Amino acid sequence: MTDIPGSIFIYEEGPREGFQIESGDIPTADKIALIDMLADTGVRHIQIASFVNPKLVPGMADADAVVAGFTPKAGVDFSPLWLNQRGFQRALEYRSRLHMEGALTLYASDAFLKRNQNRVPEQQRAAQHELIAMYQANGISIGRAFVSAAFGCNFEGDIPVERVVRLVGELLQIADEHGEEIGRLGLGDTMAWATPASIKRVVGAVRERYPDLTLFLHLHDTRGQGIANAYAGLEMGVAHYDSAVAGLGGCPFAGHAGAAGNVCTEDLVFMAEEMGIDTGIDLEKMIECARFAETVVGHPLPGSLMKGGSLKKFREARQTASVA
Amino acid sequence: MTDIPGSIFIYEEGPREGFQIESGDIPTADKIALIDMLADTGVRHIQIASFVNPKLVPGMADADAVVAGFTPKAGVDFSPLWLNQRGFQRALEYRSRLHMEGALTLYASDAFLKRNQNRVPEQQRAAQHELIAMYQANGISIGRAFVSAAFGCNFEGDIPVERVVRLVGELLQIADEHGEEIGRLGLGDTMAWATPASIKRVVGAVRERYPDLTLFLHLHDTRGQGIANAYAGLEMGVAHYDSAVAGLGGCPFAGHAGAAGNVCTEDLVFMAEEMGIDTGIDLEKMIECARFAETVVGHPLPGSLMKGGSLKKFREARQTASVA
Repeated sequence: MTDIPGSIFIYEEGPREGFQIESGDIPTADKIALIDMLADTGVRHIQIASFVNPKLVPGMADADAVVAGFTPKAGVDFSPLWLNQRGFQRALEYRSRLHMEGALTLYASDAFLKRNQNRVPEQQRAAQHELIAMYQANGISIGRAFVSAAFGCNFEGDIPVERVVRLVGELLQIADEHGEEIGRLGLGDTMAWATPASIKRVVGAVRERYPDLTLFLHLHDTRGQGIANAYAGLEMGVAHYDSAVAGLGGCPFAGHAGAAGNVCTEDLVFMAEEMGIDTGIDLEKMIECARFAETVVGHPLPGSLMKGGSLKKFREARQTASVA
Repeated sequence: MTDIPGSIFIYEEGPREGFQIESGDIPTADKIALIDMLADTGVRHIQIASFVNPKLVPGMADADAVVAGFTPKAGVDFSPLWLNQRGFQRALEYRSRLHMEGALTLYASDAFLKRNQNRVPEQQRAAQHELIAMYQANGISIGRAFVSAAFGCNFEGDIPVERVVRLVGELLQIADEHGEEIGRLGLGDTMAWATPASIKRVVGAVRERYPDLTLFLHLHDTRGQGIANAYAGLEMGVAHYDSAVAGLGGCPFAGHAGAAGNVCTEDLVFMAEEMGIDTGIDLEKMIECARFAETVVGHPLPGSLMKGGSLKKFREARQTASVA
């Protein structure tokens, strides 16, 4: 347990992951209101929109309006997502309001890469070189690199650990060829195949080969393992986590309709703070965001704390009683 | 990780925990059908009903009919629950069909004990002596002893670890005074205050003081920590878990209406089996039970695997593809 970090960094992805999977008729003003609420929780990173093809992802058709409409706040990074050059160019128009960090992605599953990007691995690697050139031309450093489907794939099955380690090496080498360093390296449980044991196995293998890398985990809760997997990550010393308020989200390309989305931010914050790990996030405010997110999407969301509540009121009642 | 057991024992409590909290109009035949389905999954212990006051727990008003109606199966223990002498006497009438094991309970929270049993600790200890006398008079050994609210209490707040260790000692002493041994000793996260850290802290303290005890955990998922807490238990070598199919249940006395119930059996089985830990349970059959339980109660239940599905079909498709 000595590897457990004293503080962790949470990258709130609810607005992007959540609204991209919703049917598209959510008012832009509600999306902006949620982002502004999230910015007041103490979370330092919010991924707020995705500049993607609105025909393929109608929930992101209003990305420009969302990005133009939220209220910037000091100390909070508001990030866009893009998947290609065109999306990046759209995001660049708002760079004064946005935290622009370059991202690289390789896929641990060839089958998922084909399905998601219609590419073979060599094409995906070539595309990363092109992305770096584009980032460099715009003075943008590489904030993160990511191995998608690192723990298993619906279309390819179990993923060998060695393949993930090799892909991490490829990402580092691609960046290095352009004189770039990678801020943090992510492992994605894109289709919710991970258990605490595989989290430890894969994180351990990557960390053994590349001990100086800052790792982050991108976890889904489709099979109920999200918080347990985050705990396994904590035990392995991982201090950076993507998560989504209320458990919003899910990948629209992974065939998971109706199943839970990303690991839930407030459930993760609860675990961390109760274990004495600082998140910088006000749990009560995050729970309010989760409840608001549920009213915004108009259907139940999977988060637990928003229903079960935190322990604060019970502890306060106890304190009041002992003072009286 | 060397403490992780190679196999675990799951005590299915869905029929008892689940139906006691439902509004009471579930057909008895459906309850029996679920029990019979569960008995076919490979699970070896099913708590099927509670002999309690039907005025207080209307969902258990048909306990006699349920116990008389299920189909016994070799290798499966079908257990009743009782809270007092009257309930025990009702269960005794069916002892030829039931696995009758004596249970002792102490409360780590005086406030919850008062609320739940209207007793002070001394009365609760005295009641355990009376229970043993009753068990002995009927030739029934003490299968389990239990510390309720061992990880925190809505009515009393955080619970000191030393208190839990002391209560375990009291349970052992009470049994010993009657020449009895305790089969397994349970720690209950009755109101879902536990995190993996407190699971490790409390289990570790109990195990250090009483290394030869067989421990079990009774976990609730109200705050989304159930599976993570079970994983922490596995890491501490705990091999016995109460759980409920589909995440049925929740304690009607703990003020958790609308919140998640017990840790979900099939989500726990998924984690264990994916990590190479034998449960003896057919996951696909357990998922079918969970889906049936949802139709029986007529509202969504919190389990994840019943929505997300297992990995079996993806692995089989992959095998088929590689053969073709």
